[in-house]
Amino acid sequence: MSRPRSTTATRPQPLAGEPLARACVVGASGFAGALAAALLWEHPRVSLEAITARTDAGRRLDDLYPRHRVPLELESFDADGLGEVAGVAFVSYPHGAAAPAVAQLRAHGMRIVDLSADFRLHDPAAHERWYGEHGAPELRAESVFGLTELHRDEIASAALVANPGCYSTAAILALAPLVREGLVADAVVDAKSGVSGAGREASDRTHFVSVDENVSAYAVDGHRHAPEIDQELGALGLGRPVTFVPHLLPLDQGLLASCYVTPTRELRADEVAGLYDDAYGDERFVELAGAPPGVRDVRETNLCRIHATTAPDGRVLVFAAIDNLWKGAAGQAVQNLNAMLGLDEGEGLR
Amino acid sequence: MSRPRSTTATRPQPLAGEPLARACVVGASGFAGALAAALLWEHPRVSLEAITARTDAGRRLDDLYPRHRVPLELESFDADGLGEVAGVAFVSYPHGAAAPAVAQLRAHGMRIVDLSADFRLHDPAAHERWYGEHGAPELRAESVFGLTELHRDEIASAALVANPGCYSTAAILALAPLVREGLVADAVVDAKSGVSGAGREASDRTHFVSVDENVSAYAVDGHRHAPEIDQELGALGLGRPVTFVPHLLPLDQGLLASCYVTPTRELRADEVAGLYDDAYGDERFVELAGAPPGVRDVRETNLCRIHATTAPDGRVLVFAAIDNLWKGAAGQAVQNLNAMLGLDEGEGLR
Amino acid sequence: MSRPRSTTATRPQPLAGEPLARACVVGASGFAGALAAALLWEHPRVSLEAITARTDAGRRLDDLYPRHRVPLELESFDADGLGEVAGVAFVSYPHGAAAPAVAQLRAHGMRIVDLSADFRLHDPAAHERWYGEHGAPELRAESVFGLTELHRDEIASAALVANPGCYSTAAILALAPLVREGLVADAVVDAKSGVSGAGREASDRTHFVSVDENVSAYAVDGHRHAPEIDQELGALGLGRPVTFVPHLLPLDQGLLASCYVTPTRELRADEVAGLYDDAYGDERFVELAGAPPGVRDVRETNLCRIHATTAPDGRVLVFAAIDNLWKGAAGQAVQNLNAMLGLDEGEGLR
Amino acid sequence: MSRPRSTTATRPQPLAGEPLARACVVGASGFAGALAAALLWEHPRVSLEAITARTDAGRRLDDLYPRHRVPLELESFDADGLGEVAGVAFVSYPHGAAAPAVAQLRAHGMRIVDLSADFRLHDPAAHERWYGEHGAPELRAESVFGLTELHRDEIASAALVANPGCYSTAAILALAPLVREGLVADAVVDAKSGVSGAGREASDRTHFVSVDENVSAYAVDGHRHAPEIDQELGALGLGRPVTFVPHLLPLDQGLLASCYVTPTRELRADEVAGLYDDAYGDERFVELAGAPPGVRDVRETNLCRIHATTAPDGRVLVFAAIDNLWKGAAGQAVQNLNAMLGLDEGEGLR
Repeated sequence: MSRPRSTTATRPQPLAGEPLARACVVGASGFAGALAAALLWEHPRVSLEAITARTDAGRRLDDLYPRHRVPLELESFDADGLGEVAGVAFVSYPHGAAAPAVAQLRAHGMRIVDLSADFRLHDPAAHERWYGEHGAPELRAESVFGLTELHRDEIASAALVANPGCYSTAAILALAPLVREGLVADAVVDAKSGVSGAGREASDRTHFVSVDENVSAYAVDGHRHAPEIDQELGALGLGRPVTFVPHLLPLDQGLLASCYVTPTRELRADEVAGLYDDAYGDERFVELAGAPPGVRDVRETNLCRIHATTAPDGRVLVFAAIDNLWKGAAGQAVQNLNAMLGLDEGEGLR
Repeated sequence: MSRPRSTTATRPQPLAGEPLARACVVGASGFAGALAAALLWEHPRVSLEAITARTDAGRRLDDLYPRHRVPLELESFDADGLGEVAGVAFVSYPHGAAAPAVAQLRAHGMRIVDLSADFRLHDPAAHERWYGEHGAPELRAESVFGLTELHRDEIASAALVANPGCYSTAAILALAPLVREGLVADAVVDAKSGVSGAGREASDRTHFVSVDENVSAYAVDGHRHAPEIDQELGALGLGRPVTFVPHLLPLDQGLLASCYVTPTRELRADEVAGLYDDAYGDERFVELAGAPPGVRDVRETNLCRIHATTAPDGRVLVFAAIDNLWKGAAGQAVQNLNAMLGLDEGEGLR
Repeated sequence: MSRPRSTTATRPQPLAGEPLARACVVGASGFAGALAAALLWEHPRVSLEAITARTDAGRRLDDLYPRHRVPLELESFDADGLGEVAGVAFVSYPHGAAAPAVAQLRAHGMRIVDLSADFRLHDPAAHERWYGEHGAPELRAESVFGLTELHRDEIASAALVANPGCYSTAAILALAPLVREGLVADAVVDAKSGVSGAGREASDRTHFVSVDENVSAYAVDGHRHAPEIDQELGALGLGRPVTFVPHLLPLDQGLLASCYVTPTRELRADEVAGLYDDAYGDERFVELAGAPPGVRDVRETNLCRIHATTAPDGRVLVFAAIDNLWKGAAGQAVQNLNAMLGLDEGEGLR
Repeated sequence: MSRPRSTTATRPQPLAGEPLARACVVGASGFAGALAAALLWEHPRVSLEAITARTDAGRRLDDLYPRHRVPLELESFDADGLGEVAGVAFVSYPHGAAAPAVAQLRAHGMRIVDLSADFRLHDPAAHERWYGEHGAPELRAESVFGLTELHRDEIASAALVANPGCYSTAAILALAPLVREGLVADAVVDAKSGVSGAGREASDRTHFVSVDENVSAYAVDGHRHAPEIDQELGALGLGRPVTFVPHLLPLDQGLLASCYVTPTRELRADEVAGLYDDAYGDERFVELAGAPPGVRDVRETNLCRIHATTAPDGRVLVFAAIDNLWKGAAGQAVQNLNAMLGLDEGEGLR
């Protein structure tokens, strides 16, 4: 009984007279890829031309995700075909599967935001330790780590942007202002994520009954986002790894990084606040809050909401909340694409 | 249409020939007090003789809490009356309100487990800083901090046991084995609690819509359980305060303390495991787990489930999960009462 | 530490050269009023000039609701002042409190969408039975029941639109196509709502611990939305009242009406589907689905998603899902305002 | 690091001098089977001798379900071995897989409570339509439908009890008193279940992100529990099928049946209440409530809590709440076993 909805009829109207970037989303059936497609579908300066999926090809995205209302059919991956209809691509494949697809699309000259981890780690040894052999090592040199607030100039001219992990996004944004000033002697990041961060695959771990009324730490012997955090904070001057432990929470979207910093010298709360104002006062997607943020505050937005202060015992506390599917994945991918296309970073993000 | 249920008919049968302790619960309309009443109602060696409440007097407890199935009427507080029918009392009043009630009941010679904070802090200055003037300072000397695993000998002969806070219970059990050996140079406790820990009072903070799909830190400038933790770990040799930050989660019952310890010397994971085996191997309510515990694992039980290990960077990680209403409140109160009465600690706790 | 955000700086840019309607929201601190303000704030053809609140006056709306990002201060209600800055108003007061405010604003010639129940019932006796004496009976004659899909022509020229209740919206949309054809002999509506439908007031009923892991019926002796449903379906020809029972669910936003219809004659599933296609095929905010809709499918949208079919025993089943705060309140208010202003009904609703 | 827990050490002490029934649970790795094992493990008159599983054989049940604390290893199914150690068995296999196992165990003379649907339907044609060919038709004649309150005399002497479906339990208990008196002209059952009712298998449907903030109807073209309901209510005199539609809710355990009855004659609310008092006044596991029950009221109990009343329009409303894993599965299985063994029905059920 589903009413046939004409793609033409429901395609949002672009702004008159504007040239549009033609885009595709490779791997649009997962949570992040589907949201990326939905954001591009509504993007006033981008025309979403094709979406692909590995196992759900042939289905319409608005059947899989009615909320996203993208009336396009998921196609099988075909780099030649995509190269003809699109100039930019989001790749939202699992780690390992992304690199070969990226290589094929790059061969057609497409500019890419890769939402997988395949191009995040600059150090080949680190990549191999966490993910195994790399599928397209020749492209590694041209990739840029896509935490927009840290690397927007490189992103603007990049052909390949490696969109950061959700935990990495929150942890790096939370700690960068302190690290940059050499103020971090030691840091613990206790991170808490909603279940969409674990992906769409059904498993014991994502079963409702496993998650409901529960909370637990996981990956305590090392999580794949840790080397991303260390790479980026190391580049800003942090001399030692951060202790990073993720937890799974009974909510769908949302991620909170609670950071406990031993400072290199005593800091007053107002000094800390000043540092964050200086770092993020002009950032449209970083919001400074007067109290610890909740993930509800940023739900379905591309914002990272941060509160930084000092504890009675002198420790510096930084809390950063994001929506893991937005600023932690698809939203930041759009922000990066905007930066690549020379658009306002906020286009299509509301 | 509610079927009249006869109190006599439904009172669980005590074990034949056993003398029973006669008990009352003062403040049985809150979450912890009601569960305490329910546990005592089913306790095979205790006869629950009376329950009181301040605002719900006149209502039956099984109307307020159908699940608990205690067919007694909540009475107004009357120390004389209680002194006649009961020899032991649980007091589950808010902080400040408990002390005067405890004093009146003690005047009738009753032995008491106080679930409030009024008698937890030994240091008068600390108590005053966190709670204001004390309502019964003369009783402070006789009170014992009721973390059963640490103080069971004193509890056995105590007239007044101060049942610990929920966060304190998890944090102290998590860290005690390391502190006792002088292995803790520094510790962060990132704690996560379900909403029942915030009590029954309706407020913006406990409104479903505030908590659902949310997580945030709170009380970052100092939480009242911090001095309890410092008092107990200090007594075991810890020289500096712990950094303690609580978070509120979208679940009803459950509390996880994630502890990040900088050790005084390098520790291997198996050494850490050995320490915890030594400390808790014989404890019936502390369970050592091979992986980080979830709060679901201990839901509706009096267990504290602990996993202790080392992180790749040498930090020691300890995770302790409890049900905040059981081991974090009413369950431990029963455990303490059992210890006071010379009973098996598990009586009435399944 | 909260960064001062300039209202001017963040005000969304209106479309160039367009005249804007100047609007205010009276009662913007509740869930529906706040969302209404957020929608108007982003509306490309409306300029939100003022927001008011009774108890939260003086606070900024983005402090109360960070997610909504409306950087305006809540003012006290002042009809004269509002009359100077705005030509249209949303009134989102509790039932009874709305009518006098509406009367004052109407006296300034403002056109109004009233989100309360004060002007929904045409029959004075029915209003009095459910809500008591009316606060502005003289305005009743000019009010139009604001279920847009049923009354858009009257709404277009109305000075006062009575936005329907959330349950009414779903139930009426679900049943209207059958009622209109004289096909309903008898109907049961079992409705299920998220907690935001109960409003922002903190109470035992909205406490997280009351709702979590729970579901129950309420108002089984009669709910205030029943007369709205009967009024509208009666006007379409239904001769007898619907049996309507609401239930409260552990979710924040979302409402499902499950309707069980005894048809006046045997109906095939494809006939039923055809009826709904005819009724709603051209409606942008009613979506027909091939399977029972979930409230997630319409979360944060103004859509009503409907599935109508027949059961094996001949009963007709209709399921209608809405977001109670959008199509059930603030979203439909905007849709109505658009109709009043001669705009595309979807403006400002994505 | 998991502490080896000796089975002997932790086995609960049976009551002195009592002969014990020796039991096994076949299929103890699913939600219902695991709870059944946990209940039998603590049962004072039953000794749990063995538990089996198909895919998890070799694992300990308290590793799979730490909360249940049953320190037994799951074995592969071996009817001969089980026949040697146990005289009674719970079979908790999927539909179709149970019948052959039941046949083998019966061949060893064991008395059985089968939690699957394999022996619930008396009519071979109905069974075949819903489940396909029967795996042990020769046993059908000896099976008794295990809704204890309806069939306890037959159950007492039965060799094979077919434990009812969760929905059937609630719906039949809700409607039986009215049906028995010939008062039901027509009935709709709108049922709402937590996710544990869908079983332990991970799927898109049970993924946390699919269920969270959602509610939807399913199986609207016919659910397998409908023929059970019709069989039992038909035997009590109901002449036509009930319209039954299940819904999935974002909670783990709990089931509410909301029943809408068109009575054969006008009924007053007190008449209705009287009927239910007569029917259930002496039942220990049916509780009559003065207001619509919530599933929280019966969580982790074997109770069915019922409220029956009349709507303003004359319809009779009956709401029945159970815990789907307790009274809807494992709890009722124990209740049935108690009846079979001549024990108090409440033994081992708190």
